[in-house]
Amino acid sequence: MKHFAKLELKNLDGRYRANLINSCTGYKSCNLLGTISDEGISNLAIFNSVVHIGSNPALLGFILRPLTVRRDSYSNFKESGFFTVNQVNSAIVRDAHHTSAKYPEDISEFSKTNLTEEFLHDFPAPYVKESVLKIGCSYVNEYNIVENDCLLIIAAIEHLYLPEETLHMDGWVQLDKIDTIATIGLDGYALPKLLHRLAYAQPNDKSQKLESGS
Amino acid sequence: MKHFAKLELKNLDGRYRANLINSCTGYKSCNLLGTISDEGISNLAIFNSVVHIGSNPALLGFILRPLTVRRDSYSNFKESGFFTVNQVNSAIVRDAHHTSAKYPEDISEFSKTNLTEEFLHDFPAPYVKESVLKIGCSYVNEYNIVENDCLLIIAAIEHLYLPEETLHMDGWVQLDKIDTIATIGLDGYALPKLLHRLAYAQPNDKSQKLESGS
Repeated sequence: MKHFAKLELKNLDGRYRANLINSCTGYKSCNLLGTISDEGISNLAIFNSVVHIGSNPALLGFILRPLTVRRDSYSNFKESGFFTVNQVNSAIVRDAHHTSAKYPEDISEFSKTNLTEEFLHDFPAPYVKESVLKIGCSYVNEYNIVENDCLLIIAAIEHLYLPEETLHMDGWVQLDKIDTIATIGLDGYALPKLLHRLAYAQPNDKSQKLESGS
Repeated sequence: MKHFAKLELKNLDGRYRANLINSCTGYKSCNLLGTISDEGISNLAIFNSVVHIGSNPALLGFILRPLTVRRDSYSNFKESGFFTVNQVNSAIVRDAHHTSAKYPEDISEFSKTNLTEEFLHDFPAPYVKESVLKIGCSYVNEYNIVENDCLLIIAAIEHLYLPEETLHMDGWVQLDKIDTIATIGLDGYALPKLLHRLAYAQPNDKSQKLESGS
């Protein structure tokens, strides 16, 4: 067993520490954020920090790194008020990763990948056609995390699109049916398979399976 | 393709909406939070909202639901200032799920599962012995998310323990080697396998694999 105490973490090489600390909290989501500027230039960026915030009202959030460098996604959704969240699947993972390359702001990542821009229901931000689970969001609020100047962005779900075959009777979505990716750290991509769902836990009664993965 | 607009989401049955909205942001982490009360009673609770916040300083965060019902984990780490994060693996997933049952505050979830309490390096919160990647944390701050009265808790990493064989040369941790679980929604447990790591993305240069899963 390897042990790192706080002072040892502090003294690690920065890249090593970034890999280690980004990996150790567990698997993360993998989504592409789609935005468009006032000048009509699309932007697409991979995020592994999109999280559930609440279901009533339906809210999601993500962490944005400090605004000390150009952040096209942030500028765009602050201007327009809207962005899309497009779930990454195993067929598009390389193109999704490539959106993290630093292109000038007048270059759309759609033009540098095989990903296709798509507009649905007059929503004013571009979706990714090759992503089969996608969410149209409106910007709601942001919280400055004073400990490291990151921002927690809060957004409302305006539209949700997903394939019928993933949707169970009770609203639960079987993500492994559409090969949704989970990430490890900054650059690791993993493919999960469902083990099982477990019934609501009752004291002194071991949980039963609701259903199992195939 | 199934489509839900905002108003349709609002009008869904509450349990259906909770399943749907909790699932749609992608895979989530799966961790057990260990705490102990001033009276010496341990508490163990499953959380799927632990996220990376920053690596320098090393910080993690998680979302806590509104404090309108008893939250033993919260009371304990606010009193003591400390808690542990114990990654859930496939061997302990049923016991981990069972910690979500509502036991009285004077009952330790360790006593109701096969999970074993463990104290390491005089840290004042209990770890889970059967979890092989575990983190000792100190409470740092909390942010009230006014949109739904949830709290974002921020904590500093004081200790990190992990098996040597998961740790790559550059600090990246291969979570599938220790059967770390990813969650879908409120009650779905999935087992990921690494596809590949991809090299730092450069403009106009398609990403190469750093390494592949076995």
